[in-house]
Amino acid sequence: MEKTELLYSGKAKDMYLTDVPGVLWAAYKDQATALNGKQKVQIEGKGTLNRQISGLLFEAVEAAGIPTHFIKNWDDQTMIVRQCTMVPLEVVVRNYASGSFERKFHTAPLLPLAPAVHEFYYKSDALDDPFINDEQITALGFADASTLAATHQLADRVNAVLTALFASVGIKLVDFKLEFGRLPNGRLVLADELSPDNMRLIDEQSGRSLDKDIFRHHEGPLTPAYQVVLDRLKGAAHV
Amino acid sequence: MEKTELLYSGKAKDMYLTDVPGVLWAAYKDQATALNGKQKVQIEGKGTLNRQISGLLFEAVEAAGIPTHFIKNWDDQTMIVRQCTMVPLEVVVRNYASGSFERKFHTAPLLPLAPAVHEFYYKSDALDDPFINDEQITALGFADASTLAATHQLADRVNAVLTALFASVGIKLVDFKLEFGRLPNGRLVLADELSPDNMRLIDEQSGRSLDKDIFRHHEGPLTPAYQVVLDRLKGAAHV
Ligand SMILES: Nc1ncnc2c1ncn2[C@@H]1O[C@H](COP(=O)(O)OP(=O)(O)OP(=O)(O)O)[C@@H](O)[C@H]1O
Ligand SMILES: Nc1ncnc2c1ncn2[C@@H]1O[C@H](COP(=O)(O)OP(=O)(O)OP(=O)(O)O)[C@@H](O)[C@H]1O
Ligand SMILES: [Mg+2]
Ligand SMILES: [Mg+2]
Repeated sequence: MEKTELLYSGKAKDMYLTDVPGVLWAAYKDQATALNGKQKVQIEGKGTLNRQISGLLFEAVEAAGIPTHFIKNWDDQTMIVRQCTMVPLEVVVRNYASGSFERKFHTAPLLPLAPAVHEFYYKSDALDDPFINDEQITALGFADASTLAATHQLADRVNAVLTALFASVGIKLVDFKLEFGRLPNGRLVLADELSPDNMRLIDEQSGRSLDKDIFRHHEGPLTPAYQVVLDRLKGAAHV
Repeated sequence: MEKTELLYSGKAKDMYLTDVPGVLWAAYKDQATALNGKQKVQIEGKGTLNRQISGLLFEAVEAAGIPTHFIKNWDDQTMIVRQCTMVPLEVVVRNYASGSFERKFHTAPLLPLAPAVHEFYYKSDALDDPFINDEQITALGFADASTLAATHQLADRVNAVLTALFASVGIKLVDFKLEFGRLPNGRLVLADELSPDNMRLIDEQSGRSLDKDIFRHHEGPLTPAYQVVLDRLKGAAHV
């Protein structure tokens, strides 16, 4: 397989077309951004850590029968995926209050949310990814009601798999962001990435963050924490 | 009936207890606020106009069989209502894009939204009335799922009544904000007020605002427009 044209250069990944129609080359970058890209630095090794973690997590999700865009891992930085027409929504799932949720509602830190809370954000750089409700989404044609329902259900299934997997290695899955897309045959699948860039992970024992909050809050180097996540996942029974 | 203790002094109304248990004296104020109270002026005559418009609209809504807190009009500034335990939500119903919705999504002005879009805002001065979705509401215990469903349904019925009534007098009901409460017997009713302070109304013929946007946008005096609304409603067949 060879990459051909650069399709999209994002904050975290470069997405290339390949010599196989319908198949993309997702190159994970050594770049970290915060505040929706306003803050940006290079972090050597992050791309390969995220590619590896993402690969393990997509495999676990696939093994549970959840459809995803994942085809296979390629080189250190690269994953091969099915090209999708993306649903223009970020789907946030929260098992515990944190981040913007904690700030918005002045909740106790890590207040348990059961059942998990889902939030949709409309993916639009021009509009700054606004928080949006179901009726706004359908009225504006960003997704239809059946896509929303399917998205919601898939997100719950992903949550169940990832929560159990992380729990088995002493990590609390606080919240995470998913993106979904449709294959040419219309099938809705989990796409994008499954990495600590898009999750809040807390070490059960120490209570310390093992995710991008380390970068957001300037709490030291990111890669050692991502390496802990990767090493724990490699040792997990499920994977 | 006599008013006794001042229960709550809001931006638009003073709510008093009365000598009848469970019955409140709602005194509509001559005050206009914008930006959640940050901007505030006295506008002579606004209180009595809003009391009269609100009275006519509550009568129309009651006549359609929708339960409300309305008991009767009293003096120029006062309405007598049933005391409720308020649901701490503002329920916004949008028939056309305007205001924060138009700004948030860069829509065309007055883009038709059919079916109407509902939005919930959590009533909290400390949190600045944040926009909130259904799952956040139930997770945080602000209302349960059945209250939300009932609220949604009542809001739709109110929308149908008010849209038809305003249309019959040449006015487009663009959007409005409702509040709901529970009577001691547990019944959910429409509460608060139904006035141009909480609606966007556009004269079909001239395209001009007949509501608080005149104040928000510094487009001249408010009371002549509110007087137009009152006069038209008085002439409506339905009322
Ligand atoms: N299977 C897929 N098919 C097509 N596009 C995909 C697929 N998986 C992910 N994408 C998209 O590719 C881009 C991934 O790049 P990256 O995560 O770096 O983007 P980003 O900087 O977060 O920007 P965006 O705001 O567009 O998400 C995203 O726009 C994502 O929605
Ligand atoms: N039937 C009712 N029983 C009890 N409270 C009511 C009833 N109807 C309205 N209220 C409440 O009385 C207050 C009305 O005052 P006003 O509209 O001036 O408040 P406000 O300044 O908008 O403040 P708030 O942010 O509390 O709504 C509101 O808090 C409203 O929720
Ligand atoms: Mg991304
Ligand atoms: Mg009010």
